[in-house]
Order: sequence, then C-alpha cells, then structure tokens
Amino acid sequence: MIKVMAANFLDRNIKAVILDITGVLKESGRAIDGSVEAVNRLLNSGLQVRFCTNETTVTRSDLVRELQALGFNVEDSKVFPPIPAMCRILKERNLRPHLLVHPDAMADFAKIEQSEPNCVVIGDATHQFSYENLNKAFQCLMQLEQPILFSLGKGKYYQEHGELVLDAGAYMSALEYATDVKAQVVGKPSCIFFEAVLQDAGVCAFEAVMVGDDIASDVGGAQACGMAGVLVRTGKYRYLSICPCNCL
Amino acid sequence: MIKVMAANFLDRNIKAVILDITGVLKESGRAIDGSVEAVNRLLNSGLQVRFCTNETTVTRSDLVRELQALGFNVEDSKVFPPIPAMCRILKERNLRPHLLVHPDAMADFAKIEQSEPNCVVIGDATHQFSYENLNKAFQCLMQLEQPILFSLGKGKYYQEHGELVLDAGAYMSALEYATDVKAQVVGKPSCIFFEAVLQDAGVCAFEAVMVGDDIASDVGGAQACGMAGVLVRTGKYRYLSICPCNCL
Repeated sequence: MIKVMAANFLDRNIKAVILDITGVLKESGRAIDGSVEAVNRLLNSGLQVRFCTNETTVTRSDLVRELQALGFNVEDSKVFPPIPAMCRILKERNLRPHLLVHPDAMADFAKIEQSEPNCVVIGDATHQFSYENLNKAFQCLMQLEQPILFSLGKGKYYQEHGELVLDAGAYMSALEYATDVKAQVVGKPSCIFFEAVLQDAGVCAFEAVMVGDDIASDVGGAQACGMAGVLVRTGKYRYLSICPCNCL
Repeated sequence: MIKVMAANFLDRNIKAVILDITGVLKESGRAIDGSVEAVNRLLNSGLQVRFCTNETTVTRSDLVRELQALGFNVEDSKVFPPIPAMCRILKERNLRPHLLVHPDAMADFAKIEQSEPNCVVIGDATHQFSYENLNKAFQCLMQLEQPILFSLGKGKYYQEHGELVLDAGAYMSALEYATDVKAQVVGKPSCIFFEAVLQDAGVCAFEAVMVGDDIASDVGGAQACGMAGVLVRTGKYRYLSICPCNCL
C-alpha cells in the first residue's frame, strides 16, 4: 500500500495512522495489492488506526461492509466520511439542504429536514451531475438571500475503472463561479474534519500521519493541520508530476 | 430596449453602437418589447451598428434567420458570434478541437479537422453538459502534454423561459479547477474579440458604445477595451444588485 514515504515525520513520535480509502485501500471495487496485509500490520502494531475518506457515493455502513467484504478489518466507528460531519453541522445550524449527492448516499441524510431548503450541499453525485440538476442547485442558491454552499470535499478528480473522472470539487468550482458564493468544505482537507479524527484517536496532530493518494486533500491538508503526510503511488498518483527530479 | 444609460460616453463622439443580442434584442425566442423599433432607429441614425453575441447554441446563419423572423433588420456580416472567430484561431494555430458545444452549433465547425484532438473547445452546450461529456472533455485535456482549453465566452448564467440557467463560464471554471489549465476566452469580454467588431465598423474603441445585459462580459468588457458600456434592464439584469442606492 505505502510505497512512498515522506521524511518529514521520522523525528516524530507517531501514535496514529490515518488512512485514506479510495486509491489507497481499494479502487473500482477491488482491494489494492498488499493493502489488506498492510492494514493488518498497522492494527497489530499498537498504533491507533483510523480511516478518513471523502467518499460520498455510498452510506458509511455500506462502505464499511464493502471494505469488510474485501478482507479489511474495519469497523464503523473507525471510518470518517464527510456526510455524518455534514449532518451534525446542518442540525447545529438549523439548515435544510437542497442535496446534490449520490443516490446511494441519500440514506445518511434521512433524518435531515429538507423542505424549503436554505442551503445547498453537493457531494460526488457522479451521474446525477446533469445539466438539469446543476441548474437546480444553482437556482436554489440564487434564490436565497444569504446563500450557503457546502461541498463534501473539494477533490479535483479520481480514478475509476482505469479512467480519471471529475470529483465534487470541479462542480463546487462551477457553482462558486456562477453564484459568487464561496463553498464551505466539509471533509478533507478541512482542519476541522481532520481534528475530529485526531480527537477520536486521542492524539495530537504532531503524533499522526495521514496516508493518501491526493497531494492536495490528503497530504497538503494533513500538513496544513500539523500532521505528517504520506503520498502513495496507487490511485490517482501517477497522473501527478509533483517533483521534476522524480525523487519520489 | 435601452432603459439605462451610463453617463460616461456623453462627451464622446459616438460613431458606432454594438448590441448584445440575447437579453437585449430577444429572449426565449421572442423579441423584447421595443427592441425592433430601437434597432431601426439606430440603423436610420447614420451610426454604424453591429451585433456582438456570445450565443453558441445555434449557427450564425440560424441566429440571423431567427432575428429576421422576429422583425430585426439584420444581416450575417453585421453579426459577430464567437464560433467564426474560434474557427479562425483553430486554423491559424493548426489545432484540432475536442468539441463540447451545442449540437445546433456544430455545423459552424464543419470545416475544422477534429481527429486526434489537441485542444478542447467548450461553448454553451446546455443539455450536452452531462457528467459523461464533461468527463470526456476533462480526460482529453489530461491526456495532452500541453493542454489548451478554449471557452466561447465566460458568462456565469443567463435567463431562459423565466429561469436562470448556467452559462458556459461555469463549466469552464469546473474544467479549469480540475485540470489547472487557464481557459483562453474567445468571445466577450475578450478585447481581441471586441476589436474585430470595431475594425469591421471602422471606428476606434473611444467612438463606440456597447449595449448589453451582462455587467461583466458586456459592460465591464467594453469599458476595459476603451469603449463606453451601457447596461439594459432586460434579460438577466434584474438579478444583479450593481448599486446599493438603486440609482440606475
């Protein structure tokens, strides 16, 4: 799983490892070679292990079931996707969302009031990102006196079945441009999101390392919050030219 | 048609009036009240009159036919949409586009080689802005060593059948965000685009006034090129709060 290691955490007393899921543990419905064994080694090492993902195309319980079926020793309480965090924010702020999210993730919003929406939430809606649906989200924002846009992550793209496909961040950018509203990102690389994971693991940022395939959301986001960041060479990695000397 | 006039051109010797089309002359297939008569007055005034549009959902000849059917005294050579300008650029630079444009505008690209694309051109593709088609344009850009993205205008939105709908600029922004490629805009508010119209009218920028319903692409773009800009209160105007004192 981890083929590339940054050197910036060798002098740290690492107590927790936070793992991204898509592109690190699995891809297109299959476990990435060596990832099940790597997770088991981490779990047996005494380190705290958490799973932190911007996955919003399924509910958390379906995601955990998929990981378990692939052989990963994972339980619900250790997996942190954006939607449960988003639901907490909506409840705290008494917000009723217009949702542009994947149909398979809708169940996680079941307890959220959605009538007369006063904000828009977009996730990785994949095929639901139609002209009609993006217009509906746009029109909802334009009709609000104080428009609020939440984006579940801000990833540019990811790999699916060997192809790169646009992630929620691209559509977030389209809505931001058209409405002049800055999106509030729930999920990586938001520090608030990472801090909830750290708190659950009982460690401070300096004691944690984040492992992912996204140089911005995973590695950059973790580093900005005080963690160490590790970039794997699986998932979308090979499409990035992060260092001209090819040192990694 | 023109209900609002900025004062910044009263001291100019205006010799040409450049008119936007959608939201100024027509909307949702109907002539805007008074616009046919206003165009006739301008044509009879001795001023040069040109029509400058970011319309890319039809060919130029179909657009002119539609305007004529609505009663406008317009001919092909006086109408400047982005696609003919785009085709000139593609030929000059030996570029073969992957097109994400409206099906009804494709005929204007008929003489452009499109095999093995080495750039992407997006226009207002409306219902063709599907998840699949946006991914295809994105993938094309990501596969190019030197990715080039052209956008036919950069409008945020416009009004159609009483609703605001996203314009090409929103999708341009999505592709820019995901690919880290800055789009080259062909159409308003590009100065190169305006200058071709001025050259055709035989006037310099200081002698021309641009009339439109888009505060950025029409008015701002014209002013940035040295023209005067006039904002109408038709089309998308009423959705903009450009002055808190409501002076316009």
